[in-house]
Amino acid sequence: MTVLPETRRYAVLGTGALGGFYGAKLQQAGFTVHFLLHSDYDHVRQQGLWVESCWGDFHLPQVNAYAAVEDMPPCEGVIVALKATQNHLLPQLLPPVLAEKGVVILLQNGLGAEPEIANCVGPERIIGGLCFISSNKVGPGHIRHLDYGSVLLAEYGPGYAPQGITPRLQQVQADFQRAGIPTSLSPDLMLARWQKLVWNIPFNGLSVIFNADTQQMIRDSEARTLAETLMHEVIQGAAACGRHLPETLIPEMLASTEKMAPYRTSMKIDYERKRPLELEAIFANPLRYAQQGGIQMPRVEMLYWQLQVLDRLNRGLPVGSPT
Amino acid sequence: MTVLPETRRYAVLGTGALGGFYGAKLQQAGFTVHFLLHSDYDHVRQQGLWVESCWGDFHLPQVNAYAAVEDMPPCEGVIVALKATQNHLLPQLLPPVLAEKGVVILLQNGLGAEPEIANCVGPERIIGGLCFISSNKVGPGHIRHLDYGSVLLAEYGPGYAPQGITPRLQQVQADFQRAGIPTSLSPDLMLARWQKLVWNIPFNGLSVIFNADTQQMIRDSEARTLAETLMHEVIQGAAACGRHLPETLIPEMLASTEKMAPYRTSMKIDYERKRPLELEAIFANPLRYAQQGGIQMPRVEMLYWQLQVLDRLNRGLPVGSPT
Repeated sequence: MTVLPETRRYAVLGTGALGGFYGAKLQQAGFTVHFLLHSDYDHVRQQGLWVESCWGDFHLPQVNAYAAVEDMPPCEGVIVALKATQNHLLPQLLPPVLAEKGVVILLQNGLGAEPEIANCVGPERIIGGLCFISSNKVGPGHIRHLDYGSVLLAEYGPGYAPQGITPRLQQVQADFQRAGIPTSLSPDLMLARWQKLVWNIPFNGLSVIFNADTQQMIRDSEARTLAETLMHEVIQGAAACGRHLPETLIPEMLASTEKMAPYRTSMKIDYERKRPLELEAIFANPLRYAQQGGIQMPRVEMLYWQLQVLDRLNRGLPVGSPT
Repeated sequence: MTVLPETRRYAVLGTGALGGFYGAKLQQAGFTVHFLLHSDYDHVRQQGLWVESCWGDFHLPQVNAYAAVEDMPPCEGVIVALKATQNHLLPQLLPPVLAEKGVVILLQNGLGAEPEIANCVGPERIIGGLCFISSNKVGPGHIRHLDYGSVLLAEYGPGYAPQGITPRLQQVQADFQRAGIPTSLSPDLMLARWQKLVWNIPFNGLSVIFNADTQQMIRDSEARTLAETLMHEVIQGAAACGRHLPETLIPEMLASTEKMAPYRTSMKIDYERKRPLELEAIFANPLRYAQQGGIQMPRVEMLYWQLQVLDRLNRGLPVGSPT
């Protein structure tokens, strides 16, 4: 694993709630950033990006906007902030924009995307990232950042073997920190991913079942019991992958959720907007990894089945077809 | 257990989709029937009962309608067709209307109501009944019977000990048959109740989670898998109570559900009307009986927790308070 060149250009694939925000922060701090856009391309090319943020609003009147990855220059840091449901596009999107000595920085929840990306760019060129942020895209090129904002980065290695803290990881951390993004590092990407799943599996999943925000769930005795029970299963699933999370994580997470302002999870927002839910990354892959380690998560599996049904009904897909 | 007197008057407590239909059928056949009404009292007293039925429509211009149980004569057959969520009213409702040699005929799904009723009328005066019918109350005194219509009756005994086929049971069967109601008998009430729960637990519960009818569920691969998995658990729960249902019941029930016209379950209808769900009878009590026999039903329990949350949110109840 080599260090990154001194001059680091960033690309953002997926200029939405996450990519739009972090990319704009990097550009605001003086980095060169190239944004791939889809439906917002014309708007952003003409008007730039608007960021309403609890850290301070700002406007970038001019950004490097692209409608096709072939038009983008090769970049040393390629931030992937697409929905995980769009990862099937990455074999086409990544090769043109990833510089020879560049690295992919995957800002997504869940598990199992990195091995797919490794198949098209190689396993030594991927950093996994987890965002602890409440933000939404509220209009074309218009991001609203409500709360939090930190990022956790870790190196990916084949089979999610822990890679420790590399100089390259510290370079990206330094850039993010310079852009005002609180950024911590983990020596073990899979541990970090499982830890975030302990929260995401119950709260993302149940928020769709109950059509409820975090406060409605955490304050209801049975919803809380259900979240707690699911959290126990996820910790068992992590253990099946050799990642031992302390059970004390559960009361800590419940307590911090209780203190959070009412929060609509990303999965609930996707559901409301009738977008496909990130079920592969957040449910199917963790279930498969746990099962390979000899552990069933029966309630997580039941929630996964339920969400598949709701996702299909929500989007008017034919019954029983794969999501 | 004594036989019933030759002249049998019937009372109907709960003149809705079930009680209104079966009571009207009995009156149509010449039996004396006394109907307890609540919100429909004035309407039914003046205009009688209208039954739109796939077996033939009919109108009873005059019925014995009552607003209070104290005004009703003692009856030999007291048909309880209230929602199970109203069973707390039975200690007040039953004693005035139950003749000395009379019997309570409880037409409800689920488990665990008879022991409660036994506490106020004695254990030897209860017949449990299960209705296989698709009917709705569509207006005041107006019942719409869409499909099916048979009834299964069985004697209750202390602790749900099987009572066999009694002469009294055959008397009620004869009356129901004379009224055109296909009526079968079971020697073991608890077995019959568990058998119906094998269908009711998955399909009533999931119909609320998915906001879907039976066809939408049975045709979706994951919804069907989920129903099947829940059915296995319910069969385990029944076994914990010494009731051994064959696993072949599951493919049979799935196949017959597939052949049914799209059907909104009673729990879904209750949910749509923002009425309390019958969660005690259909979920909490079966879970408790199974647990007493040493069997957990983890997915049934999860579904029960979910339904409690949805029921509270649906009715705008304070979070976490008991249903």
